[in-house]
Amino acid sequence: MHSSQILRAEELTAPDEDLPLAARFLAVRHQTLSLCEPLQPEDFVVQSMPDTSPAKWHLAHTSWFFEEFVLAASEPDYKPFDERFRYLFNSYYQSVGPMHARSHRGLITRPGIDEVMRYRTEIDDRIADALERGTIPPAQIAVLILGLNHEQQHQELLLTDIKHLLSCNPLRPAYTRHAAVRPYDSVAMELEEFAGGLVEIGHEGRAFAFDNETPRHQVYLQPFKLANRLITNGEFSAFVEAGGYQEPAHWLSDGWLAVQREAWRAPLYWSKEADSEFTLGGERALSPHEPVCHLSFYEADAFARWAGARLPTEAEWEVAAASQAFEGNFVEQRNWHPLPASASPSSLMQMFGDTWEWTRSAYSPYPGFEPTEGALGEYNGKFMINQMVLRGGSCASAQTHLRHTYRNFFYPTARWQFSGLRLAQDA
Amino acid sequence: MHSSQILRAEELTAPDEDLPLAARFLAVRHQTLSLCEPLQPEDFVVQSMPDTSPAKWHLAHTSWFFEEFVLAASEPDYKPFDERFRYLFNSYYQSVGPMHARSHRGLITRPGIDEVMRYRTEIDDRIADALERGTIPPAQIAVLILGLNHEQQHQELLLTDIKHLLSCNPLRPAYTRHAAVRPYDSVAMELEEFAGGLVEIGHEGRAFAFDNETPRHQVYLQPFKLANRLITNGEFSAFVEAGGYQEPAHWLSDGWLAVQREAWRAPLYWSKEADSEFTLGGERALSPHEPVCHLSFYEADAFARWAGARLPTEAEWEVAAASQAFEGNFVEQRNWHPLPASASPSSLMQMFGDTWEWTRSAYSPYPGFEPTEGALGEYNGKFMINQMVLRGGSCASAQTHLRHTYRNFFYPTARWQFSGLRLAQDA
Amino acid sequence: MHSSQILRAEELTAPDEDLPLAARFLAVRHQTLSLCEPLQPEDFVVQSMPDTSPAKWHLAHTSWFFEEFVLAASEPDYKPFDERFRYLFNSYYQSVGPMHARSHRGLITRPGIDEVMRYRTEIDDRIADALERGTIPPAQIAVLILGLNHEQQHQELLLTDIKHLLSCNPLRPAYTRHAAVRPYDSVAMELEEFAGGLVEIGHEGRAFAFDNETPRHQVYLQPFKLANRLITNGEFSAFVEAGGYQEPAHWLSDGWLAVQREAWRAPLYWSKEADSEFTLGGERALSPHEPVCHLSFYEADAFARWAGARLPTEAEWEVAAASQAFEGNFVEQRNWHPLPASASPSSLMQMFGDTWEWTRSAYSPYPGFEPTEGALGEYNGKFMINQMVLRGGSCASAQTHLRHTYRNFFYPTARWQFSGLRLAQDA
Amino acid sequence: MHSSQILRAEELTAPDEDLPLAARFLAVRHQTLSLCEPLQPEDFVVQSMPDTSPAKWHLAHTSWFFEEFVLAASEPDYKPFDERFRYLFNSYYQSVGPMHARSHRGLITRPGIDEVMRYRTEIDDRIADALERGTIPPAQIAVLILGLNHEQQHQELLLTDIKHLLSCNPLRPAYTRHAAVRPYDSVAMELEEFAGGLVEIGHEGRAFAFDNETPRHQVYLQPFKLANRLITNGEFSAFVEAGGYQEPAHWLSDGWLAVQREAWRAPLYWSKEADSEFTLGGERALSPHEPVCHLSFYEADAFARWAGARLPTEAEWEVAAASQAFEGNFVEQRNWHPLPASASPSSLMQMFGDTWEWTRSAYSPYPGFEPTEGALGEYNGKFMINQMVLRGGSCASAQTHLRHTYRNFFYPTARWQFSGLRLAQDA
Repeated sequence: MHSSQILRAEELTAPDEDLPLAARFLAVRHQTLSLCEPLQPEDFVVQSMPDTSPAKWHLAHTSWFFEEFVLAASEPDYKPFDERFRYLFNSYYQSVGPMHARSHRGLITRPGIDEVMRYRTEIDDRIADALERGTIPPAQIAVLILGLNHEQQHQELLLTDIKHLLSCNPLRPAYTRHAAVRPYDSVAMELEEFAGGLVEIGHEGRAFAFDNETPRHQVYLQPFKLANRLITNGEFSAFVEAGGYQEPAHWLSDGWLAVQREAWRAPLYWSKEADSEFTLGGERALSPHEPVCHLSFYEADAFARWAGARLPTEAEWEVAAASQAFEGNFVEQRNWHPLPASASPSSLMQMFGDTWEWTRSAYSPYPGFEPTEGALGEYNGKFMINQMVLRGGSCASAQTHLRHTYRNFFYPTARWQFSGLRLAQDA
Repeated sequence: MHSSQILRAEELTAPDEDLPLAARFLAVRHQTLSLCEPLQPEDFVVQSMPDTSPAKWHLAHTSWFFEEFVLAASEPDYKPFDERFRYLFNSYYQSVGPMHARSHRGLITRPGIDEVMRYRTEIDDRIADALERGTIPPAQIAVLILGLNHEQQHQELLLTDIKHLLSCNPLRPAYTRHAAVRPYDSVAMELEEFAGGLVEIGHEGRAFAFDNETPRHQVYLQPFKLANRLITNGEFSAFVEAGGYQEPAHWLSDGWLAVQREAWRAPLYWSKEADSEFTLGGERALSPHEPVCHLSFYEADAFARWAGARLPTEAEWEVAAASQAFEGNFVEQRNWHPLPASASPSSLMQMFGDTWEWTRSAYSPYPGFEPTEGALGEYNGKFMINQMVLRGGSCASAQTHLRHTYRNFFYPTARWQFSGLRLAQDA
Repeated sequence: MHSSQILRAEELTAPDEDLPLAARFLAVRHQTLSLCEPLQPEDFVVQSMPDTSPAKWHLAHTSWFFEEFVLAASEPDYKPFDERFRYLFNSYYQSVGPMHARSHRGLITRPGIDEVMRYRTEIDDRIADALERGTIPPAQIAVLILGLNHEQQHQELLLTDIKHLLSCNPLRPAYTRHAAVRPYDSVAMELEEFAGGLVEIGHEGRAFAFDNETPRHQVYLQPFKLANRLITNGEFSAFVEAGGYQEPAHWLSDGWLAVQREAWRAPLYWSKEADSEFTLGGERALSPHEPVCHLSFYEADAFARWAGARLPTEAEWEVAAASQAFEGNFVEQRNWHPLPASASPSSLMQMFGDTWEWTRSAYSPYPGFEPTEGALGEYNGKFMINQMVLRGGSCASAQTHLRHTYRNFFYPTARWQFSGLRLAQDA
Repeated sequence: MHSSQILRAEELTAPDEDLPLAARFLAVRHQTLSLCEPLQPEDFVVQSMPDTSPAKWHLAHTSWFFEEFVLAASEPDYKPFDERFRYLFNSYYQSVGPMHARSHRGLITRPGIDEVMRYRTEIDDRIADALERGTIPPAQIAVLILGLNHEQQHQELLLTDIKHLLSCNPLRPAYTRHAAVRPYDSVAMELEEFAGGLVEIGHEGRAFAFDNETPRHQVYLQPFKLANRLITNGEFSAFVEAGGYQEPAHWLSDGWLAVQREAWRAPLYWSKEADSEFTLGGERALSPHEPVCHLSFYEADAFARWAGARLPTEAEWEVAAASQAFEGNFVEQRNWHPLPASASPSSLMQMFGDTWEWTRSAYSPYPGFEPTEGALGEYNGKFMINQMVLRGGSCASAQTHLRHTYRNFFYPTARWQFSGLRLAQDA
């Protein structure tokens, strides 16, 4: 999930629309700090791999976004908190100027976390003040709403990045003592049938959405089946034990190369013996009923082939999801881990929350996709290559951030997100 | 273009159906040797980069294919020409057994070219003899037809691999003295409109096709426009001179990284001054009217964005191509290079031959795609990730090998094929 | 400077012999903390390149050394502070057990700095207590003295590692506000003559020394000349401005490859314009009279060749140094930077302190060198390959740690130490 | 062995001084062709790793040396055979101009071997003609003698490079059917004592030598012991079987890293089961009495430590060798492999020929070493870093090329030369 996904300028209403904007702003900003509560000062600084960023960087970069694109864009003679942060905390907006190399984010020990917190507070105060005074022009109000969604994306990354960092520590420290363990069984997997035909997918209307979800458009689908729940650890263990990681026939060619190169033998955080896994609650026994997560696309795809099925397309997923109520195991539930599917006959379970679901759809522009105008739109769609779409959100996603049409995307090798799978078949 | 594309077992009829199979077999096999005529013994051995293979390897591997999948599969007590070739000349059929590492193909100086030629002759004789005696069962006849298509794919690779090898030589030797130079002008570019709607694409019927072209299926298209001809060197030069390779805004994010990493400044075989290019006829002045070729997907995509357009999807391309006669500048014309678009009002030009055309479609399975049974089908679709579809064939493709529904595919970084582009737009 | 240099077991007396051992122990341990005073918590965690270690690791590893080799070795039923630290803070003692990968030292955010400080205090208390009670057997007393020297080596690394870390920060933060700036001129360089002949080098006697300094042995030297002072920034600037980094003729072949590969254009911390340098006092104007430092061996060697001279051998250096009083600009002076040579006619200046001096001698065993017995001696001499000897100490070295016969060693590419040069010539 | 070793200009007499120069020239040049007789055309082209060069390149480069440094340097209006060869076949003489990248030597399929042979013949004719006419000035006569020694070095490399190339071929083709197999036993190993003291090493006198062998100078040696013969396969097998490659305590630190990184488990050409080895005569059973060869320095050093001994210094080796007659198993004997030590009481065996002997001496300049003037001396000594000295020559060296004082040198990781070891100890 990258912040390349850009607001359409005319859209001002946000999902959590009951709240006034100032309250929503503070709520989102506070949620970021709340996620940092279990961290020690040292945890904020380190970048454990090039894909991740230090927590401190997330805290500063999300503030930089509001400063650069809302405050500085609203006030002609804006005086920045610190001129040098413009360089330090730019992520990839080349039009804004040069930036610190992504892979070097872990080398910046100064400013320390205290100063970054002062930076956040200062930006919060200035935004709150400007909102109260009503000095932010409509275009920047739209960007502010975008900034809130941007920050929610970074909240999820902050959690997954910290999980990765802690997993690198031989001491296996837990992020929280309160990660859920629900020992109940998962329901049996069944495949639901869907008729297909000429359907519509994509976002429409005044509510906020990223431009990659638009325009809503027609797609023709063959009849298909979709599983009623996610694949579990127990089911994935069967694949591991059947030698799934040793048999090239199950794998896409590039996936097999990745298995060899990376010496993959199980999902990312499973122990060598495949009997425990590292979670945000620390190392614990593998629960066979919980959804499997931290899979690459290649592993999800290989499992599906081994199981005589396939991954759904994103259009199939969206059509099936359309009739479901948008609720699930999100970060707001503070379970910090996906949960077993609870019995709930005659319906699709776990479509939202728990784990992101890999689809077989490459991340491509929808027909008629139009890049947004201006600085923020400079890179619209620039990530639409080499990545695969994931749907539905995870236990680390904010419910108020997502919707039925939301498109997440990652490289097929990525494993540090809460990513799992649901099976599909041709009808 | 990889030999992963597998025949559907029930299909026996080939495009060149006027010829008896034995004659077709010998014609295709002879064409491979004919392409090698300009080579010196030393040219057969070297692998100039991991993506390419030595000419000797192409000659041996295509023979191995017939030996392994037709002769050995037909005769229970088949005695191979040389037991060790089974290992040396297997490409990636893991079910057949272990194989020599792809990147080490250039280290095998023995068997020499003379022995490989004896191998070819022996296999040709055995196949011809078996065809005459009628001892090849129907299933293997189907595989033999597949083997001919497989060999035609390797003919194109042989040419592009040799072009790459010769380009690495500071002496810039020509493959042939007979590469076409047609000094006439290209016609003006115009965009043709197409209505879209619920259309059908994909292969159907008894004639040979690869399984990735099937099944024929319905797709819903928005109205679109497609250019009447390929982009020319002159047009691409304008992009180069406008600083196209220095401006990140034109590029997909991964494309921009590739530009930096590979220090790309122009298409693959252009000189530093962008005034000449290396061709199969040696180094020669850049002709502004010839189609640009040896582009990566990233360069084609960046050019299109710079030009205010986009690449077509493969469905758009196929629908537009459907009404065109299947003819063009193929390897049979022995021009060895794409030619300028000759005036021919009111129609799409250069849809077939000249250069492969990058599409914006990721290489994915068609809905309902079914893996073929058995050894050859072991890896059906195993390349359907991370690659983009190209359409239409090139001046190095055999006309008898291609058809309207043919899907070629390469990584977005690949530049050593004759790959160019045609613009599209939303209507 | 690695801790592979091992005490000879029979030696118990240390240079600072006026102090009782308990007082010396506390003094050395306190000096380490004192060096950390300017650091913020975040500075303790990060590893800025594979050659360096986080400050926190230095603090913990030096404590581990005393715990493992003194306390645990003295008491049969020793209960460690934390069993897991044995793995985390082992550097390279394979006989002690497996260890955390050197390049991953920056990933361990827990234990935090507070807990590491508790670890230090606990070890200090236990050692002090054991010394008072007299329960440490003589062999472990020897190791304790070794441990003090080991800690002094890590003090120097801590400083150079922190300097490197801060230099990676675009904000260029200073380690201290008190780094020396002495605006006086350096004296003119002159070459002193030495007769050579059959001489002796190496350590002898009861005072502490590392085993790599022994045995004292005879060496035959040709007559030679040695410069009276170190090369200055001003002199090195002349080399830079004369195109020294662009002319392969000055460089060893491997050095020229390093220049190309690393894009070296000046000493490590010089600015692009070669008019300022990063120091422990922050960025400041380049002083022409200060000794040049942070050179690789290749740069020192290339400068010497360009200057019509050469580097001295370590035997030449030691023979010349033998008659000098052991004093200079060491870390005890708290200058944090090398100083200009002050006029002092008729003698060698800056032989000790200021900057380490690269010699042309490969780091090899002295004739008759004998590996120490036991665990600590397991790897005696295991670094005696591919490294070059440096002599004399630097402004970051402890005076009480060094002596005339001290041999430091680094790879010829290393630049993050305070390493400079002094010219020599054949007489 | 690199051609960086440069003739001292005043030296004109060559070891094989009974022959007139023209005859010597033709003999050396013919020997190169003779070594190529077993090769097929394809074998001449391929570069099997960056350290090696194609046989064709050796043939052309040695001719280029005579053309560039003798012919072109003698005749003001010299017309080269082919102007482009100046670039193609320069090795590393930067003063002569730019050169083709070393690692790309295997990409040049043209000129073919036929044209390179014409090049050789033409250069031979021109040199022979000039010698007959007496038109080569004395300075270039000296260079011509250097060129003969240069060509002899390349003869050895040609053999070891071809051996490496053939070893990469799964068919394991033999270079020759005539490689020696001598089934007799090796004599028992004994250590001879030497007194040491103030001795002299290095070259002196009018006969040809490389400048790295000069000047002859005094060295002071402690008493030492040297083994009477080389270490055998049988002795090295004992190290392998004792787990020598699994025990870090035997290895230098960098050596242990190399063992891990390269997955070394035995000498270079040994089979996985350590019961056969690839030789110039093809794969054959390991003979326990033959000298072990194709060791890196690290393996030789680790074996010596495991055996309770050490490698000799080059000074020790040279002093011990001084009294021996210069004869042994060289390439002239056409054994193509080292032979067991035959009984010959009271003397050192195998000091010359059979295998190069790793010493513990880093390759450094002798005291008083002076770079030669002019183009050929441009890089004198530029390889005197990071490499270790080997002594004595091998079964692939020309006897007429070597002498008691000859210094060969390679990186401690190099294994593709015929490199073995002899043990030493302190007396």
